[in-house]
Amino acid sequence: MAQPDWLLWHPGPPAYACRMSEFKRTERTQVKRLPDRGAYDTETVFPILDEGLICHVGFSVEGQPFVIPTGYARVGDTLYIHGSAASRMLRTLAESIQVCVTVTLLDGLVLARAAFHHSMNYRSVVILGRATLVEDRAEKIKALEAFTEHIVRGRWKDVRLPTETELKATTVLSLPLTEVSAKVRSGPPKDDAEDYELPIWAGVVPLTIVPGAPITDPRLISRIEAPAYAKKYSR
Amino acid sequence: MAQPDWLLWHPGPPAYACRMSEFKRTERTQVKRLPDRGAYDTETVFPILDEGLICHVGFSVEGQPFVIPTGYARVGDTLYIHGSAASRMLRTLAESIQVCVTVTLLDGLVLARAAFHHSMNYRSVVILGRATLVEDRAEKIKALEAFTEHIVRGRWKDVRLPTETELKATTVLSLPLTEVSAKVRSGPPKDDAEDYELPIWAGVVPLTIVPGAPITDPRLISRIEAPAYAKKYSR
Repeated sequence: MAQPDWLLWHPGPPAYACRMSEFKRTERTQVKRLPDRGAYDTETVFPILDEGLICHVGFSVEGQPFVIPTGYARVGDTLYIHGSAASRMLRTLAESIQVCVTVTLLDGLVLARAAFHHSMNYRSVVILGRATLVEDRAEKIKALEAFTEHIVRGRWKDVRLPTETELKATTVLSLPLTEVSAKVRSGPPKDDAEDYELPIWAGVVPLTIVPGAPITDPRLISRIEAPAYAKKYSR
Repeated sequence: MAQPDWLLWHPGPPAYACRMSEFKRTERTQVKRLPDRGAYDTETVFPILDEGLICHVGFSVEGQPFVIPTGYARVGDTLYIHGSAASRMLRTLAESIQVCVTVTLLDGLVLARAAFHHSMNYRSVVILGRATLVEDRAEKIKALEAFTEHIVRGRWKDVRLPTETELKATTVLSLPLTEVSAKVRSGPPKDDAEDYELPIWAGVVPLTIVPGAPITDPRLISRIEAPAYAKKYSR
């Protein structure tokens, strides 16, 4: 019988993944459940990474997994994450332990006729690998620029740039986009054939992240207008 | 000096957590970085869990962490997740391995004067523990109802309910809400004192998830109007 449709699960481990550029599938990256939802090409993966604002970073310490939301940025086939040099998590990750970084975009709620086939429309990317410390100063600054530009394009040229002290206080980690998979669900519900006759409304409620009017910092010195990238924010 | 503000990190491991009802902090759940952002009370945690639509589940297989997006539902002080009985991930989790479930709500982009203090406004919950298989039939059906109602309140009464075959094909796992922490950032940017004089606009771009008009399944039999919970969806 059909598998439940209401799940967002990527395939079970060791499952998903792929290799960038041409995304070769590996045993642990091959999407096994609902394999037609799997994708292994940069044309699918990069736009998801570029549209997302936060990722969820997974790593284990003494057998306990931790999943932590944080910002990120993609530069070519590298994903950067960053944090306080004082953060134990960042220090842990910098020791080149295995990590999983997941980015999920939620596009809609899928209301099927059957409870079993309720689902969500989504686009997600799962990256496996080992993060390494960025020690090169130029690469580090480039990554910090990418973090800022990833959130708001055009912002970097306007801000007070990092001082040497701030640079030292920031740990930047890079993760190669080599073992990556995407999983995407879109479109209407998929019910069992015999259920289509049921007098139950079915369809999709689309969800969109909408930016509101910018809220100016009350401590702003007078006469500075919000820049266009804040007033008309879009991704 | 100040710690970077642009991070969403929960504290480094072993850090966050707490105990429900009155949320006692444990060594690995205490929010250590930016501790004023930590919260350990059900009044903070439950509304975040109830507003979120997806969680990110973290678990390790042979040292490799995996972070997978999925739906969930809270019933009292229990979090339920579910999946195909055929899913290796679900089977892995059902073996009572250690798991981390994280729910993150993104509320806005925080544009500070300094690149270093760029951040996001967010509310997140991190749950640590061991998931166990729900074997009791009544509890399982109650959980399935909770999954559907969590996505769209009012939907369960309208849908074709799960068959025995579907019930068997679905694995439901429960995770006690005992070791939990929340982390919240809200409000305007926080710049260094000397930067407030800079002629740089600063503020917050609020982000909201907005439901669109429901898209009726093209295969719907005629004359069924979209129910109010779809036409005027809200959380």
